[in-house]
Amino acid sequence: MSRVYNFSAGPACLPEPVLRQAAEEMLDWHGSGMSVMEMSHRGPEFMSIHAEALSLLRELLAIPSNYRVLLMQGGAIAENAILPMNLLGGAKAVDGPRGADYIDTGEWSLRSIQEASRYGPIRVAASSRGSGSISIPARAQWDLDPGAAYVHICSNETIGGVQFHHIPDVGEVPLVADMSSDILSRPVQVSRFGLIYGGAQKNIGPAGLTLVIVREDLLDRALPCTPSAFNYRIVAEHDSMYNTPPTYAIYIAGLVFRWIRDQGGLTAMEERNRTKAALLYEALDRSALFSSPVDPACRSWMNIPFRLRDARLDGACLQGAQAAGLVQLKGHRLVGGMRASIYNAMPVEGVQSLVAYMRDFEARHG
Amino acid sequence: MSRVYNFSAGPACLPEPVLRQAAEEMLDWHGSGMSVMEMSHRGPEFMSIHAEALSLLRELLAIPSNYRVLLMQGGAIAENAILPMNLLGGAKAVDGPRGADYIDTGEWSLRSIQEASRYGPIRVAASSRGSGSISIPARAQWDLDPGAAYVHICSNETIGGVQFHHIPDVGEVPLVADMSSDILSRPVQVSRFGLIYGGAQKNIGPAGLTLVIVREDLLDRALPCTPSAFNYRIVAEHDSMYNTPPTYAIYIAGLVFRWIRDQGGLTAMEERNRTKAALLYEALDRSALFSSPVDPACRSWMNIPFRLRDARLDGACLQGAQAAGLVQLKGHRLVGGMRASIYNAMPVEGVQSLVAYMRDFEARHG
Repeated sequence: MSRVYNFSAGPACLPEPVLRQAAEEMLDWHGSGMSVMEMSHRGPEFMSIHAEALSLLRELLAIPSNYRVLLMQGGAIAENAILPMNLLGGAKAVDGPRGADYIDTGEWSLRSIQEASRYGPIRVAASSRGSGSISIPARAQWDLDPGAAYVHICSNETIGGVQFHHIPDVGEVPLVADMSSDILSRPVQVSRFGLIYGGAQKNIGPAGLTLVIVREDLLDRALPCTPSAFNYRIVAEHDSMYNTPPTYAIYIAGLVFRWIRDQGGLTAMEERNRTKAALLYEALDRSALFSSPVDPACRSWMNIPFRLRDARLDGACLQGAQAAGLVQLKGHRLVGGMRASIYNAMPVEGVQSLVAYMRDFEARHG
Repeated sequence: MSRVYNFSAGPACLPEPVLRQAAEEMLDWHGSGMSVMEMSHRGPEFMSIHAEALSLLRELLAIPSNYRVLLMQGGAIAENAILPMNLLGGAKAVDGPRGADYIDTGEWSLRSIQEASRYGPIRVAASSRGSGSISIPARAQWDLDPGAAYVHICSNETIGGVQFHHIPDVGEVPLVADMSSDILSRPVQVSRFGLIYGGAQKNIGPAGLTLVIVREDLLDRALPCTPSAFNYRIVAEHDSMYNTPPTYAIYIAGLVFRWIRDQGGLTAMEERNRTKAALLYEALDRSALFSSPVDPACRSWMNIPFRLRDARLDGACLQGAQAAGLVQLKGHRLVGGMRASIYNAMPVEGVQSLVAYMRDFEARHG
């Protein structure tokens, strides 16, 4: 067996000790004689797995007690509809749905905006589109509606490679963040948000699990069309067991949470992620062949798109990387080039190998 | 390691060879250096896994070419909303949603009816409720609306333990079946249905994967409120990759499909399931202590609820079974008693062990 360094944007690499434990426990979890996949979600074995995963997550993120953690399905793309369905109904009975403000920072924001617009009046309160740089619009330029049901941001854009490095102040309006691609990568002050959501397949675990962390006062604003299985109030009241949860994905997520805790928690993750990103950005900025197209003020620590001076070398660069065990580096089809996704589970050694490979490639092609 | 016989109603036991292969491939799938969990869903490795799973499923069920297979999320409980959202919009532009007929055969039908009623006028065209027997209403008693958007049945009720053993004739109206708990347990003539759906966690694989087999002419009837990630047309056009699919669950499902094929396909499954069910029902009918409450004409081959003459013995019976490695036999809380769920992956030896245990229990307590 030979493991590679896997730079996939998601589903993405997982900590090797987690995979080893999952393999060892596959046929017989803790002497139960069953795989976790085979357990009734209501039996004591799985209930303990579920409770431990939730408890570890609450500990890692220091989630305040007035927030509920929901384990759902469908990923962030389904959540693009589920979120406005749940929040545009308004706190009081009113005619028709309320509106919400969205900040457009790239492709994922745009998809959120397009889908949400099907459920109520959505305003783009700020956009970096057409600004000529890959960046996040400065807070001072945001045109917020103080009566909005919420303000939506995507904390990290995996395609453009921009990331919020400060939580924007949006006053009394609940701030909602799609944190699919940077949740658990650093400490975050949950109390600054009304709601945080994310697909699991970057820093948490396998695809098919969606995390929603929601302040309790936002649980009762659903539009009448919201499916019960995706209604935050109903999911919260049933401890995420209104429909059968994705049990195996929750088990793996729990193992990942434990691994993060054992590594030193989110402070240690931040330090490691900052180190990895600095290594790669410094290499890009030093290089005459490779470069980063992203505004230095908001460069992502998770997804680092980069270009060659001559795009005709892309193929050779990717092929050589693959041969060196550095895989899934191809850039998103919308932007081309290369992209290194370096989530929590990517070791520093993986980034060092990539930087060494780039240096070598430049020596041969520069 | 000691494996048990696991009679859980779902998530349920899986074929041991599937679990062994999954454990072996956990860290390095086919020399890729990655776990299946870590693969980009758009990379060649996962694309091949996805395509093979779909191809095996089409082969097993002999799915006609005018049907699309969608791999979705949320299970049958989410599908209770997603289905009417997708089908009540009508074939032509009309004002307001169309209606549908539902057949009420137990708890899962009832939940489908309640949820669907939120999206349009739902008629209960027949019901076994209050009939005094646990049964399926005879086709002659169904009061069907020839203008309905569809007729809905639950082909197997896991709680009551009734199962359709013939496909009802509903004329030109599309027949829709929730087959969560008996799909792949026997051959089925797919062309008799407009749509078949089911959660994976009984006969297919891990929880978190939903299967939808839909005739192409039904793809364009969605209500405007349908989330894009759950819109059958959109999911079909993106080959179930509009949102990131539950990749690991699809991989396991593919291994299960292959196992079913290697066992002789659905004809072999039917024979084995018929044998297992007959063993247990004969034991129940012969016993003076145990009994089946279900109408013999529609007894399920998958979920067999049974009772003790004296319910005060339930605890001792379940405890003794557990000690004998026969687990998860507790009846659903709505009906009490015991329940043996004997899906495809339960070997004949498991049912023989259960019958032997019951005989022994009766000798001691009869």
